[in-house]
Amino acid sequence: MTDEIRVGAETLREFAAQVFERAGMPPEDAATEAEVLVWANLRGVDSHGVLRIPSYIQSIEAGGMNCRPDVRIERETPATLLVEADHAFGPVVTKMAMRRVIDKARTVGIGWGLIRNTTHQGAMGYYALMAAEEGLAGLTFVCNPPNMAPYGARAAGVHNSPLAIAVPAKTHDALVLDMATSVAAGGKVSLAVDKGVPIPLGWALDADGNPTTDATIAQILLPAGGYKGSGLAMMFECLSSLMAGNPLLEPTFVGGPPVRPGTQNSVVAAVDIGAFTDLEEYKAHVDCLIEGVKGLPMAEGFQEILAPGEPEGRVRAERERDGIPLPAGTVANLREVAGKLGIPCPAEFL
Amino acid sequence: MTDEIRVGAETLREFAAQVFERAGMPPEDAATEAEVLVWANLRGVDSHGVLRIPSYIQSIEAGGMNCRPDVRIERETPATLLVEADHAFGPVVTKMAMRRVIDKARTVGIGWGLIRNTTHQGAMGYYALMAAEEGLAGLTFVCNPPNMAPYGARAAGVHNSPLAIAVPAKTHDALVLDMATSVAAGGKVSLAVDKGVPIPLGWALDADGNPTTDATIAQILLPAGGYKGSGLAMMFECLSSLMAGNPLLEPTFVGGPPVRPGTQNSVVAAVDIGAFTDLEEYKAHVDCLIEGVKGLPMAEGFQEILAPGEPEGRVRAERERDGIPLPAGTVANLREVAGKLGIPCPAEFL
Repeated sequence: MTDEIRVGAETLREFAAQVFERAGMPPEDAATEAEVLVWANLRGVDSHGVLRIPSYIQSIEAGGMNCRPDVRIERETPATLLVEADHAFGPVVTKMAMRRVIDKARTVGIGWGLIRNTTHQGAMGYYALMAAEEGLAGLTFVCNPPNMAPYGARAAGVHNSPLAIAVPAKTHDALVLDMATSVAAGGKVSLAVDKGVPIPLGWALDADGNPTTDATIAQILLPAGGYKGSGLAMMFECLSSLMAGNPLLEPTFVGGPPVRPGTQNSVVAAVDIGAFTDLEEYKAHVDCLIEGVKGLPMAEGFQEILAPGEPEGRVRAERERDGIPLPAGTVANLREVAGKLGIPCPAEFL
Repeated sequence: MTDEIRVGAETLREFAAQVFERAGMPPEDAATEAEVLVWANLRGVDSHGVLRIPSYIQSIEAGGMNCRPDVRIERETPATLLVEADHAFGPVVTKMAMRRVIDKARTVGIGWGLIRNTTHQGAMGYYALMAAEEGLAGLTFVCNPPNMAPYGARAAGVHNSPLAIAVPAKTHDALVLDMATSVAAGGKVSLAVDKGVPIPLGWALDADGNPTTDATIAQILLPAGGYKGSGLAMMFECLSSLMAGNPLLEPTFVGGPPVRPGTQNSVVAAVDIGAFTDLEEYKAHVDCLIEGVKGLPMAEGFQEILAPGEPEGRVRAERERDGIPLPAGTVANLREVAGKLGIPCPAEFL
């Protein structure tokens, strides 16, 4: 077995959908889950791609992620939405909620939705981009139990809540900002572990709250911009979890029943550009902004200035052409899952 | 003259209101402007307080800020608002717009407003807090012409767009996050100039794009978290200026008529907590979050973990008791303005 194989996106999507269907999801939901995972792989965000499949299957078995959730719209206005996800797979409920807030935005200019008790939503840029592809601005953020030290602390107290914002451009790809509120996303620490390289000082603390460059013992992320990333993470918890009546940080502080593993809360929002200005003019202005920023004189050490989402867009073009590279470890794990569920693997896996 | 005098907030408010009224503003607008400036002073954000008055008066004379604007609601839905501010003083139009989005949020759960062609809005936390004080979450951000280098650039191409988010607590002060997307706000660089101290490497570049620790030649701010602050600034321009059809970064890139000095665009939004959950329970959860974060074990070098807005709240308590300290330079400038406009100075100024 070589270190890495390449698999076409469609092949990987079909495989993933089969896995989820066999694990108990309705076919349409399985296809949605597969679509969002492979989308992340296509864009090079492998930490949010098919390598998650084995842990999702474990989570189903452990009573975490729910293949047949009773998703309920609990409150609704012409502009807002509160969804109880019943531990649905994140993409299934998040895509539905984003669809509804886009429709609301088309009617009253903005749609603002809260999702309570979802599970891993994958790469949040996917949902923000759903809005951008339809000529709206998309905005999403997420809260989970603590994995980041608030500014001034040496223990986890907030989540490194990721945030995604997307807007459409005219001739360029849509702008998609997809960022965690920590200095580095957890996936980057995992990547350092896999590569056997140290992490920069300032990314993370060990379990005892000591700064570390050893990725293998890094446990607690540190906030981007000190009190800024820390403050954003606190405010996101207030705007999502607390607003949805489902605190995810509080159990760490006051004890009580622990949060069901994998639980997330989230905000998904869309703003209709056409409610404020001419959409085509807007897109031309976004093009101009992209080109203007990219055309600025470069700082030392840079060969190019990249717009938000541009690196991922390039990876996508390459991977749509050449297939998605999967490391041997991921392939082995996926084969194991397939074997357990009794479904065939793509030829490339063998 | 000593280096610093103390003036009561009410005295300062009355003086500032007199100045603005004499400069041509309607009495109610003059009072609003004075209120927002002195609010910043009370909270220790002196860079956004009465020291701005002389530059505002100059701006009026130069045809920048408009004392008698023709403020127009250009588009409106039950949830959204587009305001043409006609270069009104920021607080006058922003307070009005925040009032309206709060009312919208009370009706449909969220209000989302864009303000085009406003001028300096003062401390943005003021408006976010308006919502929090009425039991809603408040969210605002601002775009101006470029003063910050996008990630990878050595020239200004984005603005260090400030962002403010506020939510109410039960027994604690409201949480108020008020932050720029740069490593350090411009006011901190100015303060270093005033104090004659260097700034840390990584805060700013000189006019030629070289990193500098000399605050007196620092011209271009650097983004917090590298591509994160830079990306947020770009997306805020897209969500405010471009959405309002009034690009503020574009003229730097493509030339054309320059932006009228002092022009800002802004988003003001409110989310009604009661549309999603029980407000009193919500506030109790915010208290728990504040207490939980503050109670975490501290990182080395910290004596206390502070919640967003907590430092400013402490300064406010002290300054409401002891008055607002004004440095001799500020007092001299305010006396000059008063002399020019023929209005009396507070006794403390003499």
